[in-house]
Amino acid sequence: MQLRAFSEEDFSGMDRFFRMNLINQLSGPRSAFLVGTADRSGSTNLALFNSVVHVGANPPLLGLVFRPHTVPRHTLENIRETGVFTLNQVHVDMIEAAHTCSANYSREMSEFDASGLIAEYRKDFPAPFVAESFVKMAMVPEEEHLIAANQTIFMVAKIVDLWVAEDAVEAGGHLDEKITRPAAVMGLDTYLSTEQIMRLGYARP
Amino acid sequence: MQLRAFSEEDFSGMDRFFRMNLINQLSGPRSAFLVGTADRSGSTNLALFNSVVHVGANPPLLGLVFRPHTVPRHTLENIRETGVFTLNQVHVDMIEAAHTCSANYSREMSEFDASGLIAEYRKDFPAPFVAESFVKMAMVPEEEHLIAANQTIFMVAKIVDLWVAEDAVEAGGHLDEKITRPAAVMGLDTYLSTEQIMRLGYARP
Repeated sequence: MQLRAFSEEDFSGMDRFFRMNLINQLSGPRSAFLVGTADRSGSTNLALFNSVVHVGANPPLLGLVFRPHTVPRHTLENIRETGVFTLNQVHVDMIEAAHTCSANYSREMSEFDASGLIAEYRKDFPAPFVAESFVKMAMVPEEEHLIAANQTIFMVAKIVDLWVAEDAVEAGGHLDEKITRPAAVMGLDTYLSTEQIMRLGYARP
Repeated sequence: MQLRAFSEEDFSGMDRFFRMNLINQLSGPRSAFLVGTADRSGSTNLALFNSVVHVGANPPLLGLVFRPHTVPRHTLENIRETGVFTLNQVHVDMIEAAHTCSANYSREMSEFDASGLIAEYRKDFPAPFVAESFVKMAMVPEEEHLIAANQTIFMVAKIVDLWVAEDAVEAGGHLDEKITRPAAVMGLDTYLSTEQIMRLGYARP
């Protein structure tokens, strides 16, 4: 297949929107999550993330990337203020509502109201979950790492409680994605469904 | 939908393999990449990663998670030794060969030989690319962050050169995933294809 080459010089000379789309799509499709938070007064916030990665299974840790803290970031501020947040997997029927949460609302407008998604509370956890989600996690931040190169923040957080669609949990601990139907997002605007091709055994030399 | 609850106590009391599968699948489908490296003598290594995230578009930065450095990690050692690596997107026809690269080979066995994937060199960059891949990036590490909670490493690296299937690059900088056909992986063993559902405009309040 014919390949097109882009050098570092090409990147810096590129049209800003072309570069934004191209570079954002290079990491490929990744699962979409809604991060639920509340401030000290209980005002809720919901934000769309596609940078959730596995960090460890025992203890159960996930990592996520926050954009530079140079403009108001209600999600990060709320997490720092309250020490908790929720992660809610976006399924394919939630895509349009979830995308609405990527808009930049003022503090007075909750993304729950803007999107129509329903806030729910579980087990006295102070951050709101998304009722519609089939995989929801109560998270406690463990570490923040400031990326010197561009002032983004990599946060590592522990899963302290998990709720997942009962029928999706297989005997070996796998989740049946035909039931959870996770939505993936590529770049800033492209949403995809996923379909299992194969499950392969543990690879040995 | 009926949900099944798991608490922190459930996690720690779980069968090890059940926990490994369950927790590894919670971050959902994520794109699969092969990381190509060589040591100082030129011996090549290829490793499968599913933890590649977008960190920034200008400069173009990606992040990836390395497991704890408590057993030999040829990929990380090679990157530290040479200061370069490649990222090669796995497409759906490469899944079985790519999965082979997740086995723990000795230094004497290159995963290129084990998998049958072809090493290629581009523009005098000293790390090997995967010939079969439709999206390949020459990477220079910028920062390593040690995750105190479990000794994993979050590395941020800059894209210094990019090659992508010519026909996949759209006028606005998007990549046509019908051409690049990226493979996603969920947990340790489940491979998925992706299909675009919709592309949504920039969300505004």
